[in-house]
This record gives sequence, C-alpha cells and structure tokens, in this order.
Amino acid sequence: MRATVMYGAGDVRIETVPDARLIEPTDALVVVTRAAICGSDLWPYKQMEHSETGRRMGHEFIGVVEAVGGDVRTVKIGDLVVAPFVWSDGTCIFCKEGLQTACLHGGRWGGTDLDGGQGEAVRVPQADGTLVVLPVSADNVLMPSLLTLTDVMATGHYAALTAKVGPGKTVAVVGDGAVGLCGVIAARRLGAEQIILLGRHPDRIALAKEFGATDIVSERGEAAVERVRGLTNGFGAHCVLECVGYEESTRTALSIARPGGAVGRVGVPQDEVVPAAVPTFFKNVTIAGGPAPARAYIEELLPDVLEGRIEPGRVFDWLGRLDDVPDGYQAMNEREAIKAMIEF
Amino acid sequence: MRATVMYGAGDVRIETVPDARLIEPTDALVVVTRAAICGSDLWPYKQMEHSETGRRMGHEFIGVVEAVGGDVRTVKIGDLVVAPFVWSDGTCIFCKEGLQTACLHGGRWGGTDLDGGQGEAVRVPQADGTLVVLPVSADNVLMPSLLTLTDVMATGHYAALTAKVGPGKTVAVVGDGAVGLCGVIAARRLGAEQIILLGRHPDRIALAKEFGATDIVSERGEAAVERVRGLTNGFGAHCVLECVGYEESTRTALSIARPGGAVGRVGVPQDEVVPAAVPTFFKNVTIAGGPAPARAYIEELLPDVLEGRIEPGRVFDWLGRLDDVPDGYQAMNEREAIKAMIEF
Repeated sequence: MRATVMYGAGDVRIETVPDARLIEPTDALVVVTRAAICGSDLWPYKQMEHSETGRRMGHEFIGVVEAVGGDVRTVKIGDLVVAPFVWSDGTCIFCKEGLQTACLHGGRWGGTDLDGGQGEAVRVPQADGTLVVLPVSADNVLMPSLLTLTDVMATGHYAALTAKVGPGKTVAVVGDGAVGLCGVIAARRLGAEQIILLGRHPDRIALAKEFGATDIVSERGEAAVERVRGLTNGFGAHCVLECVGYEESTRTALSIARPGGAVGRVGVPQDEVVPAAVPTFFKNVTIAGGPAPARAYIEELLPDVLEGRIEPGRVFDWLGRLDDVPDGYQAMNEREAIKAMIEF
Repeated sequence: MRATVMYGAGDVRIETVPDARLIEPTDALVVVTRAAICGSDLWPYKQMEHSETGRRMGHEFIGVVEAVGGDVRTVKIGDLVVAPFVWSDGTCIFCKEGLQTACLHGGRWGGTDLDGGQGEAVRVPQADGTLVVLPVSADNVLMPSLLTLTDVMATGHYAALTAKVGPGKTVAVVGDGAVGLCGVIAARRLGAEQIILLGRHPDRIALAKEFGATDIVSERGEAAVERVRGLTNGFGAHCVLECVGYEESTRTALSIARPGGAVGRVGVPQDEVVPAAVPTFFKNVTIAGGPAPARAYIEELLPDVLEGRIEPGRVFDWLGRLDDVPDGYQAMNEREAIKAMIEF
C-alpha cells in the first residue's frame, strides 16, 4: 500500500510500504477514506533530523473497517469509523477517568512501528476502545467536520473545558490556527459571552468571526496584553485558550488571564519551562490542559456536527489526494493553508 | 504604641510607633491579643535590603475591637475578631467571586503605610469586609487554632481545594512547615484516602502523622519522586500540595502528580518560571493555587475548630511576648520552631 513517510525536515514522501494487516485479536483494519495534516505534523517538518528509516505520518483519519480481530466487539466490517489522535483500550483506569491519552495500553499512530493516518490503510490497535462508528456514509457532506473530531475540534473543546469556559464568561483564544478556530467554536458552544481571538491572518480572522469571535486582537506581546485588558474592563479574560505553544504565546496567555482565571494550554510547549511563575501565582491563575483526550469527547460533539450546530470542517481550506500530501505540508508550513484534508 | 519593624535581613526590632487610629469611616481599630510569625515573614528576614524607614510586620492576628468608623456595620466595640492575611471590602467583583486576595479596594498589612499584626494595635481598613467575629472570649483555649485561620490553615485548605482533593483521592503534601502540616489536616478533612507527606524533620513528621498523614517520604529530588510512585502503584498522586515555593520542591510536586492530576501551589514561588513545562503538559497536570483567599474560608473552617474536629493550632511550638518577636524570627529561621505565636 502507499503511505506518507517523513525522512527529515521538509522531506515528506509518498512511498510503497508493507500492507496494513491484523496482528492482534484486538485490532481492526481500516481503509482510510479521509485524512488530515495537523499543525503538530509541522513540528517535525520544521526540525526533524534526517532518518534512514523514516517516520510514518498522520493521526487524523476516517475510514471503513475492512477486517476485525477475534476479540473486537464494537465495530464490524463495513462500518465507517473515526479514530482519535491517540489509540486507547477504553478499559484501563485512565480511560475510565476520561484521560485516554494516558491509557496504560494505548499509544500514538505512525512512527517506525505503526501505520499512520496519512496512508491507504491503518492497523488500529485496541479497536474497541479507539474507534467510534459514524452513522453516515463515507461521502456525506459533513465529512470535513467529522474529520476534525479526530483532533482539532476535540482539542479546541478540551482547551475550552480546561480554561473553565461557561455561560457568561469572557474568553480569549491565543492563536488563529485550526485549533484556535475550533477553540472559538467550543467557547461559543459552551456559552461564552465575549470571545477575543488573538491572531493576525485576515482569512482566519474572518472565519473566527463567523464562528463567534466578538473581538480581534492582532497585536503581539505587551501590546496584545494591553488591548485585551482594554476589552475586559482592565481585568483580563476569565478563560484563556493557549493554542500555539511558543514561549511568547504562553506568556501572553498567562498575562491576559484575569485574577482567578484559567489558561487551557493545548499548543505543544516548545520550551522547558512555563513563564511568569510569580505573577501567575499572585493572580491565582490556573494552568491546565495538555494533549486532548479526544476519544472522551467524540460522542459528545458528534450530534452537534451531525445536526449542523457547529461546522469545524470549515477550517479545511486545502484539499488534495495522497500524492499531494507533500504539497499540503508545504502549504500549511508557509501559511498558505490553515489545514489540509486528503481524500482517498 | 509598640510594634515590630524590620529594617533588613536579620534585623527585626520592637519599637515605639505612632498609635493606630481610625482614619476612614470604614476602619476599625483592633487591639491585638494574639499574633503569629509566618513562614513568608522569613523571606524578607533572609534577604531584605537595609531600609532606613523599616517595614511594619505581621499579617496574622486576633484582637478586640476598640473603635469603629461611622460606616462600619458588621463589627462593634468589644467584639473579638480574626483578620485574614489580606484585607478586602467584601463587595467588589472579586470578593463576590471568593477571591478576596484580588479585592479592588483591598491590600496587605504592614509595610510602610499600614499597621502590621505584630504590634499592639492595628487600624483595619474595610472592616466590614475583612473581619470575622469570633464567638468566644479572648482567653479561650482554642486561640492557637483560631489564629491559624488568618493564614496557614486557610492556606493549607486552599492548597487542597486547588489540588482537587476529595474522597478517595491520593494526596501528596510537599513541605512539612506549618502550611504543609495544615495541608495534611485539610486533605484529611476533605476525605483523602492516602496522604503522603514529603518532609524530613522528625518533630514535624510526628505531628503530620497525628494530623492524618499515612506515609512519609524523607528523600528529596528524583529519589522522592521514585518513592511516591512506589507508594501509588507507579502512577503518582491525584492531588499534590506544594507548600514550599522553591524550584526543587515545585519540580518534585509536578513530577509526583499522576496523569490528569492537579498541583495546588501555595508556597510563594522563588523562581520566575515553572519547571517541567513539557512533561507536565503531556501528563495533563493542572497547576493551580496562589495566595489563599483566607477570608473566603474562615466561616467554613470555624465550626471545625470550635467543635474540635481539627486542631491546626498544634503547629505553634514557640510562644512569646511582643519583646520576644525577634527571637521568634530567629527560632523559625533556624528551624528550631515550626511556628511562633505572640501573646499580648
């Protein structure tokens, strides 16, 4: 079969790899119908050292079950299924607590040992715990929005939850990438009164406004902090969604939280420390977040997608086939695209 | 009147200062009957630069109301009152949210402009918002425990709340000072199943066990982390109370939190950054806490003190008069005393 392999920074290739196949009785074999390129795929795309063996890529996909192992109970051949960006058994102590990203028997797609979502088929370990059956056909027009449940919409939702978004709250979203935009959707869905997006790309700002952003702050650093304070009676935001991961964006996020507020950080941190420990302490600001346990939220978000109340699929502004994946990485890396979707 | 003034590191004096008096109509004048020296008083005691004017000290006190301004409604002359370590109006947006430490019209005791608790009398600004009347006489045997409601017991309680302590949880308390010991009391009070104290002073460990600690870890650094993991099925603690504030203790606290756990930090941070940003992120650990809004918890904790269910006053193992205050600082600084109480 054919799949995406990254060999180093900027070096993404579509290659013939061993066919995906069942190995464990808890596996399912899924033929991919849609996949996506993630902002987090750009981290290795920017800085991965050259590898002879390469790394299989992709952790956002929807597909059709082609075969199941003898122990699989919740999905069957022919089902259309969506997979979260981490696989998990659904039965361990952490899965039961809703933190499937810490599953004792789970793991991540791709790499050197497992299939990735950016390929023709995937062996899905722990299929019962991992996969969610979609009650639509593979050509449904909602496919882009359903595909966001694998990661970015679930991640925006988790950022909002950990930032304690609720009715009447003032929310600031740091970052106008796909996750930030989904954070706007999540904040609105959870009843936020004011949603301030910190971003500077006109196309993304326009989309954020359609998703529910009430204010836009395009400044950075201290100027951004001042603008947010000006928009919030001088106090800052109750809830801040950090959707970037850089030191500067994290510092901004912590600085615009009002006393007693919370920052939900979902941007993968690029620094070894969290800045502003002292002012954050004296303002009683909570710092929460992490990799979103997407699996915990797919069922909750699914009805809103199916019934059209949220349209996170609009973050996809680049569409290609498997052979176009290297161009998709390049388009996202050069900020020509918000997010790329692959049709098989 | 006479009061405690700090002129620099190690330089604490008892001096004659201007008599406390009413200034604003919202003030009360309180004659101090008991006061305490706080672990946070030791920070300037260790490192304050020399000051010509000096700094009035003390933020933990109980006293009798001697006079009230014309706008004061909730306390009257003769009332025995306890004051939290920050004064607050009780009516602003933050007070109403229970974050009196961020009161828009509040502030801290002592310094160069206000009276401190380690003196014969105190002008209490915003008396209605600040003071809580105690339904006992000034010589009641419960006075030490009541005095802890000003700061250390409320702070231990806040550490436990922000670390999300609840029934059945595994809790680790980092630090065996007065706040850590009160954290043990708070964790037990909130229903924790296992309470691991990280400390190394035999007298404090003995007290912690009486307060409810189930396990003691006297190692430090990575060895402490390994020991806590060994005591918690390899996972770490659900709830971690950081009651020190150093970089090493904070790193330990973050490292012993289990995936999805929470760290309530109440030790004043001595570093500009929070360590371990990346592992904390990938473990979905929440970092919360700050200066405890003690005022929010006095009424809640008071019945437990009055009815003898908790005995936080046992952290006082040094008793003196006002003239002994410099010796009290020295005893605490040299770890000869856990916490010093002053009788007037």
